[in-house]
Amino acid sequence: MKLSEIATLIGADFSGEDFEVKGMNTLIDASSDELSFVANAKYIKDISTSNAGAIIVDEKTKEFVPDGCSALVVESPYWQMAVVSAKFAPLLEEIDSPKATIGEGSRVSLKAEIANGASIGKNCQILAGVYVGSNVTVGDNTILYPNVTIYRDCKIGNECIIHAGTVIGSDGFGFASNKLGEHKKIYHNGNVVIEDDVEIGSNTSIDRAVFGTTLISRGSRLDNLIHIAHNCVVGEYSVLAGQTGLAGSSKLGRSSVFGAQSGVAGHLEIAPFNTFAARSGVTKSIKESGKVFAGFPFMDHKAWLKIQAKLARLIK
Amino acid sequence: MKLSEIATLIGADFSGEDFEVKGMNTLIDASSDELSFVANAKYIKDISTSNAGAIIVDEKTKEFVPDGCSALVVESPYWQMAVVSAKFAPLLEEIDSPKATIGEGSRVSLKAEIANGASIGKNCQILAGVYVGSNVTVGDNTILYPNVTIYRDCKIGNECIIHAGTVIGSDGFGFASNKLGEHKKIYHNGNVVIEDDVEIGSNTSIDRAVFGTTLISRGSRLDNLIHIAHNCVVGEYSVLAGQTGLAGSSKLGRSSVFGAQSGVAGHLEIAPFNTFAARSGVTKSIKESGKVFAGFPFMDHKAWLKIQAKLARLIK
Amino acid sequence: MKLSEIATLIGADFSGEDFEVKGMNTLIDASSDELSFVANAKYIKDISTSNAGAIIVDEKTKEFVPDGCSALVVESPYWQMAVVSAKFAPLLEEIDSPKATIGEGSRVSLKAEIANGASIGKNCQILAGVYVGSNVTVGDNTILYPNVTIYRDCKIGNECIIHAGTVIGSDGFGFASNKLGEHKKIYHNGNVVIEDDVEIGSNTSIDRAVFGTTLISRGSRLDNLIHIAHNCVVGEYSVLAGQTGLAGSSKLGRSSVFGAQSGVAGHLEIAPFNTFAARSGVTKSIKESGKVFAGFPFMDHKAWLKIQAKLARLIK
Repeated sequence: MKLSEIATLIGADFSGEDFEVKGMNTLIDASSDELSFVANAKYIKDISTSNAGAIIVDEKTKEFVPDGCSALVVESPYWQMAVVSAKFAPLLEEIDSPKATIGEGSRVSLKAEIANGASIGKNCQILAGVYVGSNVTVGDNTILYPNVTIYRDCKIGNECIIHAGTVIGSDGFGFASNKLGEHKKIYHNGNVVIEDDVEIGSNTSIDRAVFGTTLISRGSRLDNLIHIAHNCVVGEYSVLAGQTGLAGSSKLGRSSVFGAQSGVAGHLEIAPFNTFAARSGVTKSIKESGKVFAGFPFMDHKAWLKIQAKLARLIK
Repeated sequence: MKLSEIATLIGADFSGEDFEVKGMNTLIDASSDELSFVANAKYIKDISTSNAGAIIVDEKTKEFVPDGCSALVVESPYWQMAVVSAKFAPLLEEIDSPKATIGEGSRVSLKAEIANGASIGKNCQILAGVYVGSNVTVGDNTILYPNVTIYRDCKIGNECIIHAGTVIGSDGFGFASNKLGEHKKIYHNGNVVIEDDVEIGSNTSIDRAVFGTTLISRGSRLDNLIHIAHNCVVGEYSVLAGQTGLAGSSKLGRSSVFGAQSGVAGHLEIAPFNTFAARSGVTKSIKESGKVFAGFPFMDHKAWLKIQAKLARLIK
Repeated sequence: MKLSEIATLIGADFSGEDFEVKGMNTLIDASSDELSFVANAKYIKDISTSNAGAIIVDEKTKEFVPDGCSALVVESPYWQMAVVSAKFAPLLEEIDSPKATIGEGSRVSLKAEIANGASIGKNCQILAGVYVGSNVTVGDNTILYPNVTIYRDCKIGNECIIHAGTVIGSDGFGFASNKLGEHKKIYHNGNVVIEDDVEIGSNTSIDRAVFGTTLISRGSRLDNLIHIAHNCVVGEYSVLAGQTGLAGSSKLGRSSVFGAQSGVAGHLEIAPFNTFAARSGVTKSIKESGKVFAGFPFMDHKAWLKIQAKLARLIK
């Protein structure tokens, strides 16, 4: 899509050099043929070093856009970013792609659906009711239990086990809202990558990234009914017990351990080798390692035990 | 089913005029060819204005049933209501209904099942493993991702997106219990209505109403792994983040916003335009609008922050 | 597999009588042709009364193994138990077993998959997208709604209703971890048994036992999005509301009632006839019956109400 067409779509003045926009991305990751946006003043600092070919901004932010980068000035950059995201959304399925390739020794149920353009490795077992979307790659020796859904463009490693009913790559929970409270979908054109040797329980949901990748790193173990929001990173060998949830863009370091029904707020960074008791609610980034936390808002586990003891005395 | 047959079924004396009972309903919604019930003294006030043709009551409540309405007197009205509900449960699938109709431009996977009597609008995309039950209607331009299940009689609007593994219309969690602790299923003969422009995440469950409708109103956004119990109403443009749960019959006003892992108790009414922080547990109805709440039991968000600060000081 | 082969596999010295090992089991349940293990000093007490034919132990524990039972001595018994468990894992599906038997009056969707060796009773209804694994037995008059998955070897009783998307028999969340934080899967070769007259909501997950059985007893009612970990027992007529989770090996007595979003820690025993308010977090075994609890950590419901009142006064 031409930049001039995008400008027309969102009602922005446009007077620079036109070019073919290949996609959208964050300021940090955008290349010169991509469009970015600034919807929050805290990202203004990233404009000067961005390689984006064009940026959707509001009137106040326009002045920060350097020469050689086109500013598309609108009233509501986030809403207009959502409008444009729809234009870069691929088809749900690549009907015209070549038929999926299935590696030697793999067994695929006739009641599974492997969309065109997908690729399954060797010695996999794919049971009935599984859906593998277009351009998905599945490594070797991986098991997909019945009724697993893998959305298009996701990647599943070698030696993975994904239990029944789990969904990999559903759209993240992202939308722009206007003053009337109406919501405009932000199309999630990123993906999910599951590295090697990952086991995921049943009825878990892992959302695809808006841009880039939601990452479950090598050797991790996820239990049942877990919610992983868009753009999260789960570090290597992490352990997440049942019904835990991570909000968007949070990053867990290696060997993070979460007890059941825990939660992590969005945009946090958790240092490696920390443990969280069941029902912990993590509300801030953590820079230290090797600690045990509990509670909501979370605190040192021992402090939490003390508070509970004090509360128990309160009622006597 | 004749009223006299129902009386025999539940062991009730019956001496009024017999009629063909068309169904069961609440006192407020029942029409003259429907049967209602009183299982809790707080509903006695609704008897006098009810149009129900007959009411299942216990000995103490009998006197409130007016002339022209038949009282079926039993020891345990709730249990007997459950017994009768089974008689009005439709078949799981209307095998003899006409084949489903599919609107122009819609693409339905050969691995999806569209039951007889269903109707799919125009330009829909229905992927593999989807189940659409009898008499379901799906509007135009709606996407059902793989392995979505829509139970019979539910209605899905236009421009909706329902992500993989989500279930619309499973039976609500309703049963009568006797003194031995045994449970008798209350058949849920209502439905779920999803209005236009609603997006629902993956592995979410929305239960059908016992009578009437569980309603997700226009423009709402529901995330993954959410539990909506029978007879809830989610107001227009509401936003429910991951792993939130609503207990039965609660009604959220327009533009309600819930952070992740929140919960709402049953039979509450929440005024429009309120926001609830993650993990809020709403235990009472709310009449004011425009507030921010947090905690369990929930309170004003600022008060909650103060309590947390005091608790933190407690341990020093 | 010969005991000598297992010894070689895990690098254990072995100098007793060789025999064909039929499987693995706990010290308490193992028979003389089975292999057990001690990975935690608290189980040493069970060695002397165990019938196990051989036991994986570490150097310190070796001395407790009586004559007539072979000790396989390794550095990390839990890790090696995991290694051996893989050798006893059956095929995902018994392709060569006889075709499934379907009882009179049962209706099975052509889009359901009933694996070889399974057996369906009379008058069942099995809808599209259901998966029933090898050697599963389903009783009479049972309904499996669309996209339900029953893993191999599980048993479903008579008069059961299992709602859409629910998974019965996925692997429990069990693995051994080494000092590098890597995890080794413990194969779960047990099963799940659902007794008669059980109704289970949608998108619920019930994990199979590592050895033996995860049991949902007669007459129980489970709501949506519930997580039941490996080796749990849910007592007769129990009621578990939406989004509740039980950690591994916990046992609920008869007529246990849990409000929504509750949790139970692992290895607890809960006496019969107790009730837990929504969001209870049960952290200890309970020996009394007939009580009402609330809170996390849980306490008497009235005490919890008092604490909340005191906290509310704190902020004034």
